[in-house]
Amino acid sequence: MRYAPTIAKLIAELGKLPGIGNKSAQRLAFHILSMPLEEAATLSDSITAARQSVRLCSVCQNYTDRDPCSVCGDPNRDRSTICVVENPRDVSTMERMRDYQGLYHVLHGVYSPLQNVGLDSLKLKELITRLQKEDSVREVILATNQTAEGEATALYISRLIKPSGIRVTRIASGLPMGSDLEFADDLTLSKAMRARHEF
Amino acid sequence: MRYAPTIAKLIAELGKLPGIGNKSAQRLAFHILSMPLEEAATLSDSITAARQSVRLCSVCQNYTDRDPCSVCGDPNRDRSTICVVENPRDVSTMERMRDYQGLYHVLHGVYSPLQNVGLDSLKLKELITRLQKEDSVREVILATNQTAEGEATALYISRLIKPSGIRVTRIASGLPMGSDLEFADDLTLSKAMRARHEF
Repeated sequence: MRYAPTIAKLIAELGKLPGIGNKSAQRLAFHILSMPLEEAATLSDSITAARQSVRLCSVCQNYTDRDPCSVCGDPNRDRSTICVVENPRDVSTMERMRDYQGLYHVLHGVYSPLQNVGLDSLKLKELITRLQKEDSVREVILATNQTAEGEATALYISRLIKPSGIRVTRIASGLPMGSDLEFADDLTLSKAMRARHEF
Repeated sequence: MRYAPTIAKLIAELGKLPGIGNKSAQRLAFHILSMPLEEAATLSDSITAARQSVRLCSVCQNYTDRDPCSVCGDPNRDRSTICVVENPRDVSTMERMRDYQGLYHVLHGVYSPLQNVGLDSLKLKELITRLQKEDSVREVILATNQTAEGEATALYISRLIKPSGIRVTRIASGLPMGSDLEFADDLTLSKAMRARHEF
């Protein structure tokens, strides 16, 4: 059965979103059709409003509606440390911990030749320029994911920064808290063994 | 970390959609922020366009952009049979089968007192009026889901229509094709046994 063109278009557009297959797109579309007009308009407006008002912070490259962003513009943050993460969601994950007081730098991706993501598309140049401009930075913490791509990107960045004399660290990998040894994978276990420390 | 207000709003609106939790809403929101401006506008427009152009077919109550809808307006469809389904998605599921040539009637829900869906909110009155107006109908097939609510709704409708002399049928329940007896649940198996037929 052919859907009405506007319904088909809506299903197609929703289906382009990550993690939304054709079935989910249909379910969402029919839900939207059953929503009161104003609610559908609010949803639609929130998309354009967010997309139009939000840009990248000129300092840390995180999404923001003002420049510099709320973290970079906060005088209480520790300006000697920059935590490098893959994407904006990682910033909110780190902030949830309420433990880190330094600044961030968002790469917007990781080096992944298999997925056609080259080093040029990452916000690396911006990081280097930032380190050259700001004398206050003493440490760069590489918090890219513990994946092959994340590791490779971290290694590359560390080699890029090391010559400048700034301390470069990598967040630890090991057994997650509350986990059973029995269910740990070999790579994690071997990393955890090698990174063992004195009591 | 507090998100920029427009981002928070977008996450909240996306989180209202069915099956989209807070995590998914965040992922979708950040994906939308990373989309080119025009693509985000297209998505936003498709929501308003669909919601504004689509209404209910005055005959079968299915979603449509013209009245009567493409099924009800098709002169080649068999006007003697009406298949009653719970929601618009069920119509497209039935149509995918390419086997049924009759008309439809969409209830937009099932009787479900536990979820506060009363009989009044279903498009039942419309079905009855339709049956009284159109003499051509010889059979009403009840194709609500094989759930407690679907069964109850089907039973109620059958009692409502029977006095008029129109044939009322229910789609069969039994073991799905390609399934193993071993994995069938008791209720399905017992229904399938009782509905056995001669070779």
